[in-house]
Amino acid sequence: MGTLVLLRHGESVWNAKGLFTGWVDVDLSATGEDEARRGGELLKEAGVTPDILHTSLLKRAIRTANLALETADLHWLPVRRTWRLNERHYGALQGKDKAQTRDEYGEEQFMTWRRSYDTPPPPIADDDPYSQAGDARYANLPPELLPRTECLKDVLDRALPYWYDEIVPDLAAGRTVLVTAHGNSLRALVKHLDGIGDDAIAGLNIPTGIPLVYELDDAFEPKTAGGTYLDPEAAKAAIEAVANQGKK
Amino acid sequence: MGTLVLLRHGESVWNAKGLFTGWVDVDLSATGEDEARRGGELLKEAGVTPDILHTSLLKRAIRTANLALETADLHWLPVRRTWRLNERHYGALQGKDKAQTRDEYGEEQFMTWRRSYDTPPPPIADDDPYSQAGDARYANLPPELLPRTECLKDVLDRALPYWYDEIVPDLAAGRTVLVTAHGNSLRALVKHLDGIGDDAIAGLNIPTGIPLVYELDDAFEPKTAGGTYLDPEAAKAAIEAVANQGKK
Repeated sequence: MGTLVLLRHGESVWNAKGLFTGWVDVDLSATGEDEARRGGELLKEAGVTPDILHTSLLKRAIRTANLALETADLHWLPVRRTWRLNERHYGALQGKDKAQTRDEYGEEQFMTWRRSYDTPPPPIADDDPYSQAGDARYANLPPELLPRTECLKDVLDRALPYWYDEIVPDLAAGRTVLVTAHGNSLRALVKHLDGIGDDAIAGLNIPTGIPLVYELDDAFEPKTAGGTYLDPEAAKAAIEAVANQGKK
Repeated sequence: MGTLVLLRHGESVWNAKGLFTGWVDVDLSATGEDEARRGGELLKEAGVTPDILHTSLLKRAIRTANLALETADLHWLPVRRTWRLNERHYGALQGKDKAQTRDEYGEEQFMTWRRSYDTPPPPIADDDPYSQAGDARYANLPPELLPRTECLKDVLDRALPYWYDEIVPDLAAGRTVLVTAHGNSLRALVKHLDGIGDDAIAGLNIPTGIPLVYELDDAFEPKTAGGTYLDPEAAKAAIEAVANQGKK
């Protein structure tokens, strides 16, 4: 019943600088652009040909998809974009240095904000320079829907309606669906797909730029738990690197 | 009742080489990429902010839109793609050198193929290396719908259903609609919008990379005939250059 391909965007300029990004719309770094193209090469080499693309509204995911699909000669795919696939909103931490935040608040608070399933960081003020309160792309979201901060549970809650309404119908039609999004919006989807517990999800990292392929059964559950990375060796190395983010 | 913005893709690799392109999916040249970014700058400078994008299924239009919208910080726009906005199918001329074709067939035949409203070039064979008969992106088109050659009238006939069904409703909602497409699919739309005659349309050239803005009235007719280019001086110079294509 269809194939789901998850692709996390390549390194962004703020990933490289070690800043909390969330909904701030930073671009890919040159490394991130290369990762995106590599993702497209992996799709092409594996003969995995998506029929449709879903992305967030953020540039680093959109450009990753564009570069990967151009590399795979699939630039013409139909595409849908949604705020429901955006990265987790990082609240008042957006724009802050990860290592400094760890020093200032201590390891426990830092890891709670990064990895707790249901504890969001403090909300961002609407007049914060890194707030999205006045951003034209969210003009159609009523105020109660626009996040000021999110934990992973919040991300799953807002991503699931899109999963059920917009992605599952394509999978039901037997299509191969590419979702190009973010570390936490993809972790939320994987938590749902693989039935990962609220605590265990803290240990799951998804590497950038390496397509993760799920063949789904009639209940839209994975035939193989955890799916299959198109470059398993690179995925393993990258997962370890992500786990070390923010450490000195 | 809404604003229509037409943007012709920047120079392609085959434009630069003087080859007939049609539905062959060639990429932008470096000059074409710069033209696309300039198109985005013009939108931004003029404060013209599209709400939605429509493109063809061809890379040179898709990449022009991507580069222009990235430059204008509008990469997140919803986008729809359709074969109905593709360039005119150039039949058996696809992949042929324009100047050589002029030499071989003479000025009159050459100009008939290029500019006649209702005389298409000879059809392309399905086993021609430049045929789109086996192209995955057109797999959903029944054989009778996939063109083997087209004149401008054919382009208008297949573009109009998309205009009426997919573009007009957005204009009716007061939206600003960006259409990033090709010399002949845009000429067909302009012929319809401005009510240009079958003979007079031969003299109309649309420059690359310069947004052409139409404010439309309640009947979806232009308030100003011919619309308004965002850089009128550059448009004038470019129109003259296009008219000289294929000349020695």
